[in-house]
Amino acid sequence: MENSGLRVVLAGAGRAGMVHGRNLAGRVPGARLVGVADADADTAEAAARELGCERWWDEPAKAVADEGVDAVVIASPTFTHVDIAVTALDAGRHVLCEKPLAPTLADARRIKEAAERSSAAFVMAFMRRYSPNVSAAKRAIEAGDIGRPLFARSTTRGPGLPPEWAWDPERSAGLIAEVNSHDLDSVRWFVGQEYVRVHAVGRAAKRPDLAARYPNFVDLIAATYEFDEGGIAQVDGACPADYAYDARLEVYGTEGALFVGDAREQGAALVVRSDAARSEPAQSWRTVFAAGYLGEDEHFVRVAAGIQEPGTTVDDGIRALEAALATNRSAELGRPVAIAEL
Amino acid sequence: MENSGLRVVLAGAGRAGMVHGRNLAGRVPGARLVGVADADADTAEAAARELGCERWWDEPAKAVADEGVDAVVIASPTFTHVDIAVTALDAGRHVLCEKPLAPTLADARRIKEAAERSSAAFVMAFMRRYSPNVSAAKRAIEAGDIGRPLFARSTTRGPGLPPEWAWDPERSAGLIAEVNSHDLDSVRWFVGQEYVRVHAVGRAAKRPDLAARYPNFVDLIAATYEFDEGGIAQVDGACPADYAYDARLEVYGTEGALFVGDAREQGAALVVRSDAARSEPAQSWRTVFAAGYLGEDEHFVRVAAGIQEPGTTVDDGIRALEAALATNRSAELGRPVAIAEL
Amino acid sequence: MENSGLRVVLAGAGRAGMVHGRNLAGRVPGARLVGVADADADTAEAAARELGCERWWDEPAKAVADEGVDAVVIASPTFTHVDIAVTALDAGRHVLCEKPLAPTLADARRIKEAAERSSAAFVMAFMRRYSPNVSAAKRAIEAGDIGRPLFARSTTRGPGLPPEWAWDPERSAGLIAEVNSHDLDSVRWFVGQEYVRVHAVGRAAKRPDLAARYPNFVDLIAATYEFDEGGIAQVDGACPADYAYDARLEVYGTEGALFVGDAREQGAALVVRSDAARSEPAQSWRTVFAAGYLGEDEHFVRVAAGIQEPGTTVDDGIRALEAALATNRSAELGRPVAIAEL
Amino acid sequence: MENSGLRVVLAGAGRAGMVHGRNLAGRVPGARLVGVADADADTAEAAARELGCERWWDEPAKAVADEGVDAVVIASPTFTHVDIAVTALDAGRHVLCEKPLAPTLADARRIKEAAERSSAAFVMAFMRRYSPNVSAAKRAIEAGDIGRPLFARSTTRGPGLPPEWAWDPERSAGLIAEVNSHDLDSVRWFVGQEYVRVHAVGRAAKRPDLAARYPNFVDLIAATYEFDEGGIAQVDGACPADYAYDARLEVYGTEGALFVGDAREQGAALVVRSDAARSEPAQSWRTVFAAGYLGEDEHFVRVAAGIQEPGTTVDDGIRALEAALATNRSAELGRPVAIAEL
Ligand SMILES: NC(=O)c1ccc[n+]([C@@H]2O[C@H](COP(=O)([O-])OP(=O)(O)OC[C@H]3O[C@@H](n4cnc5c(N)ncnc54)[C@H](O)[C@@H]3O)[C@@H](O)[C@H]2O)c1
Ligand SMILES: NC(=O)c1ccc[n+]([C@@H]2O[C@H](COP(=O)([O-])OP(=O)(O)OC[C@H]3O[C@@H](n4cnc5c(N)ncnc54)[C@H](O)[C@@H]3O)[C@@H](O)[C@H]2O)c1
Ligand SMILES: NC(=O)c1ccc[n+]([C@@H]2O[C@H](COP(=O)([O-])OP(=O)(O)OC[C@H]3O[C@@H](n4cnc5c(N)ncnc54)[C@H](O)[C@@H]3O)[C@@H](O)[C@H]2O)c1
Ligand SMILES: NC(=O)c1ccc[n+]([C@@H]2O[C@H](COP(=O)([O-])OP(=O)(O)OC[C@H]3O[C@@H](n4cnc5c(N)ncnc54)[C@H](O)[C@@H]3O)[C@@H](O)[C@H]2O)c1
Repeated sequence: MENSGLRVVLAGAGRAGMVHGRNLAGRVPGARLVGVADADADTAEAAARELGCERWWDEPAKAVADEGVDAVVIASPTFTHVDIAVTALDAGRHVLCEKPLAPTLADARRIKEAAERSSAAFVMAFMRRYSPNVSAAKRAIEAGDIGRPLFARSTTRGPGLPPEWAWDPERSAGLIAEVNSHDLDSVRWFVGQEYVRVHAVGRAAKRPDLAARYPNFVDLIAATYEFDEGGIAQVDGACPADYAYDARLEVYGTEGALFVGDAREQGAALVVRSDAARSEPAQSWRTVFAAGYLGEDEHFVRVAAGIQEPGTTVDDGIRALEAALATNRSAELGRPVAIAEL
Repeated sequence: MENSGLRVVLAGAGRAGMVHGRNLAGRVPGARLVGVADADADTAEAAARELGCERWWDEPAKAVADEGVDAVVIASPTFTHVDIAVTALDAGRHVLCEKPLAPTLADARRIKEAAERSSAAFVMAFMRRYSPNVSAAKRAIEAGDIGRPLFARSTTRGPGLPPEWAWDPERSAGLIAEVNSHDLDSVRWFVGQEYVRVHAVGRAAKRPDLAARYPNFVDLIAATYEFDEGGIAQVDGACPADYAYDARLEVYGTEGALFVGDAREQGAALVVRSDAARSEPAQSWRTVFAAGYLGEDEHFVRVAAGIQEPGTTVDDGIRALEAALATNRSAELGRPVAIAEL
Repeated sequence: MENSGLRVVLAGAGRAGMVHGRNLAGRVPGARLVGVADADADTAEAAARELGCERWWDEPAKAVADEGVDAVVIASPTFTHVDIAVTALDAGRHVLCEKPLAPTLADARRIKEAAERSSAAFVMAFMRRYSPNVSAAKRAIEAGDIGRPLFARSTTRGPGLPPEWAWDPERSAGLIAEVNSHDLDSVRWFVGQEYVRVHAVGRAAKRPDLAARYPNFVDLIAATYEFDEGGIAQVDGACPADYAYDARLEVYGTEGALFVGDAREQGAALVVRSDAARSEPAQSWRTVFAAGYLGEDEHFVRVAAGIQEPGTTVDDGIRALEAALATNRSAELGRPVAIAEL
Repeated sequence: MENSGLRVVLAGAGRAGMVHGRNLAGRVPGARLVGVADADADTAEAAARELGCERWWDEPAKAVADEGVDAVVIASPTFTHVDIAVTALDAGRHVLCEKPLAPTLADARRIKEAAERSSAAFVMAFMRRYSPNVSAAKRAIEAGDIGRPLFARSTTRGPGLPPEWAWDPERSAGLIAEVNSHDLDSVRWFVGQEYVRVHAVGRAAKRPDLAARYPNFVDLIAATYEFDEGGIAQVDGACPADYAYDARLEVYGTEGALFVGDAREQGAALVVRSDAARSEPAQSWRTVFAAGYLGEDEHFVRVAAGIQEPGTTVDDGIRALEAALATNRSAELGRPVAIAEL
């Protein structure tokens, strides 16, 4: 294995990047992390050392140009995805691209065009689909366990704010994209229909100061989606929500309902005393979805090897981005917005 | 006790009425069920016999006129509440009125006027407020356990359709009023703010045939509410949702989140086999909220005795009704509707 | 109903007695509580007033002698059961007798003889069998859901100590009888075999002072039982266990396992904050088994009316008592004790 | 990292061995799996290939003799531990030894002597102590959350039988050692006292055929332990228990109780239909304790590097083995057995 397997470079060694980096540095058969590219050279070097790989670059383009590189995992800030993705795909490097695809539909479409003209594979990083409980839910739906899905709900709230660049909707596509991209992908996947219209209400409820600096910044959002065959979904998101990393999904169908996730998901022991039964809530997407990230990275390697078709495509990325952008616009305008208006 | 205590008549001995009837026939100290009035004389007689009381009438007005009656529990169809309530209040009889108050705001205001000019007490039947877990949640909020409430969510889904009169929004104020009145009251109570605006999407997803007969009939609804100090709420409702009686509430605050109810709430043993861990979901509001109905009836008796102030007022009934009617209009018009527009 | 139905007297208006009293005072169709007999006249009078019945006595024998009495619920201290039961049965009064049957096998056998020669019915108060979740478990076992039962476990721990008379094993048959009689009945019922041998370890772990006053007092007990066809059971009990009223049962069978009860069973809302997810544990057998007590009282009325056969017999009471007494002896001797040795 | 770090050899590439192998092949910083030794040469070679390491041997002694080896993880059958451990320790190789230490106390003591005379470190593989929820429980106890521990209970049941050698108590120390060694270690760790006496009942309930081939074979065991300062514990074990991998622990203390593990622990989505709420139970110790195995392997590497003291020592292994052997003897003799009798 030492001298074979997919040679992967990590582009962006921040919060999300290091999750992929640690997976690819040793836990994923058929792949080898050969280097790290980060706009911040010190970050690149430190990450390369920690992940046990020999090389680092201060620019993804340099890594992509290297003949010893087969694939790139893009985990840099959202507004930088398009340049890295297009360069990599045009150089024939396989791409796993973090969500959301880009902050604008124009950028997203440039990535799609590059993916279409490239010989290399493109996988959209909706890791929840590779998480055992989410994929079991999808299988249950496909097996007819809940009948025809009528309504889906998805909540994601988490501790801490994302990095500063993400506070700016121009660069991140806003909170709904940063925090709820996965919800937008999942409800669409579960309901099995396409987005038509959205209504949303957003607030800068905990951090009004950030709304002053970044127009349209919100830290709380509640949206309702209509799908093309009558399905409905509701999504809500919030951060910083320090009580827990709380990601939950439910689908109501003609013959049952289905639930994934629980805010109480235990990271630790349950202590019962006369005043209360206490358990420790989950604190991070890293732990709650650890198996999902690993499954996604393994899937990417198999797609690059031609063994599997992408389970999450550039079109999935565009659909979720459209929903996110329409959500933002609805929250700004105070009225429902159709996807067709974008 | 035999010859003392509040002498109560039940008006309407259907699904909700019999719950109150069974409570008041023996479980509520300080009260005695003395008779049953139901527009259907056979129903009145059968209920009186079952509940062990001597008298029955085929019209609430007759019962109200009787000097041996102190109080009336109104559990007849929604569109009949106004006449019974006004007659009873004007005759000085205490009233516990089932939700929703009435199908129109005009009717609701007539009840309010009667309550204001009457010497008798009026209690609005939002029994969830008297349920131990819901009231514990309110106490936790008031104790500051979750900080300032920012967002609330409430779901009610249940098996079976309500009686036919309730399928007609003209008579019942629609599914959101029939199924979700309690949610509308609870999220307002928990967030502690007043409704300003609502956006809703409704569907006749399982019973399109009923929409053909009753315009604007829906069996699935998803709504987002804005409150006057920035709070947000989402409510969804569905019936017939045969998988369970599934009532759940959550509140997200600046310092924590709070959860009431669980679709898995066990009515029976958990069996674990290699294929699945199975438990029996709750099947009825009668069992899930049994303590709430009892608490409400006891509260009513104490209010009538002048020992307590009403915990749920005619104004609470009007606020929830306004939210319900605005929800219906939003679902029809496909745009947000302000309470002020009603 | 006023002038018909089973005329019941409560003998012993303490902790257990008042649970039956409140049920029979109005919640149980076909029965009427006509009076209260308690060795303490003030207790008898106060209970009669609270329960809305006209009569009270300072001695059960007086009540039993009254022609207006059809049935007696015996909820006096364990060592007083035998006299009341024999007198009542010999007078042709139906008996519902609290657990444990008596503190000695000799007393228990006297009750059995009286029950056998009486025209009246005898029901043993193992209310868990009438609790929806416990009886659902039994049905699941009978339906073959877990295959053949091999091993059962049952835990009961609860807040507070029982009344002082119960600290004395001579009068109460000890902690295992006072706290764990229900466990002893349930595991036998679930496994479907008869007790053969037991090994137990007991401690006066929290209240060594009481062991000084009452020889063989224990407040913690852990026992293992062998049944006649190879089945095994473990039971543990403790009080005062102030963290919760914690009653749990499990059965391991050849094809699955089954669980009843959960220490976390919620009496109230769940609050999640960054430090902990907290819910309120159940605090009393009164609430955890409320439906069981009611079901038991209803069952008793139907047995007295000749509509049902007793679901819990005097023999069930004797079997559980034998197990309890053998447990006590094993804990004293430090070796396994066979039922046959008693 | 490629050329540094602890050079580890895996001895025994079966069920347990491959868990360690996969961890050490890439997930554990500071270590590198350099080869596999298995008595079965084909197994050794296949494992080495799968784990991406260059070397394999058909005998641990050969690996231990190699200068390129720093440490050995012993995951061969229990009866082979002693020879491998002594050889490795005497050669100055660090040892992580799977539970139980050995099938006899004589063997266990030989390992202890070798550990004492060696410059290398010895870590006992009680991986549950490195599992986040188990170690959180220990921290809660140490923080006084439940007061002084009085009673502990631990259950382990799992699907499938262990390999055939383990059916023979002579080679495996029996079911209680094979399946419940971790329980024996955990209850001792939680109660914080030493074993004094045990009473146990065992059965060949599902596989009487194996008892015919291997005297004293049991597939179900229920034991009660007494500790030296009055503490009590109960442990039960069963396999094949196909319904789930079901590992649960509880501790009852003077001021609360503590629970770890849940048979319902979800591997997948929860589906609620009108007949049942179903979730998928955990199926393997590999997944339930994945973090524990990883934590243990990381701990071993840090101990070998001199950064940490062993968290689980050879003495811990001996204590658990004594408890297991006394349990076996008690089950055979039908009477309590003191540790001092061994
Ligand atoms: N899938 C998930 O669950 C998940 C979780 C977190 C973040 N994300 C996504 O991952 C991406 C990164 O987010 P993050 O939170 O890790 O951000 P981050 O700010 O923590 O890290 C981004 C890193 O990229 C580097 N960088 C900046 N510009 C770059 C460029 N042009 N080329 C290469 N590197 C560059 C930065 O120096 C930084 O080290 C975003 O798209 C975000 O939405 C996904
Ligand atoms: N609080 C709750 O959880 C809850 C639950 C169910 C229903 N409800 C409410 O209770 C009310 C009754 O609903 P239901 O489902 O019991 O209806 P139902 O149709 O089951 O029963 C209504 C009864 O009222 C009788 N009736 C009709 N007109 C009458 C009149 N003018 N005077 C006296 N009796 C009359 C009918 O004959 C029938 O027996 C509705 O307002 C409903 O929204 C509340
Ligand atoms: N089924 C259960 O879950 C449950 C729960 C608690 C108690 N119990 C059983 O119920 C019985 C009573 O226990 P308790 O905790 O209620 O006791 P308690 O001490 O609270 O009440 C006993 C009452 O009986 C009265 N009494 C004493 N001697 C009497 C006599 N000879 N005749 C009539 N009354 C007499 C006492 O004055 C007292 O009021 C016991 O056998 C106990 O084991 C059962
Ligand atoms: N910690 C845990 O949770 C856990 C789980 C399973 C097993 N175990 C323990 O791990 C040990 C192995 O159990 P298993 O279930 O993996 O057994 P296994 O039979 O699946 O694997 C044992 C392997 O060791 C090999 N082997 C046999 N003799 C050997 C020798 N002398 N030298 C080197 N290799 C040899 C066999 O060929 C086989 O490949 C046992 O002590 C067992 O109790 C621990």
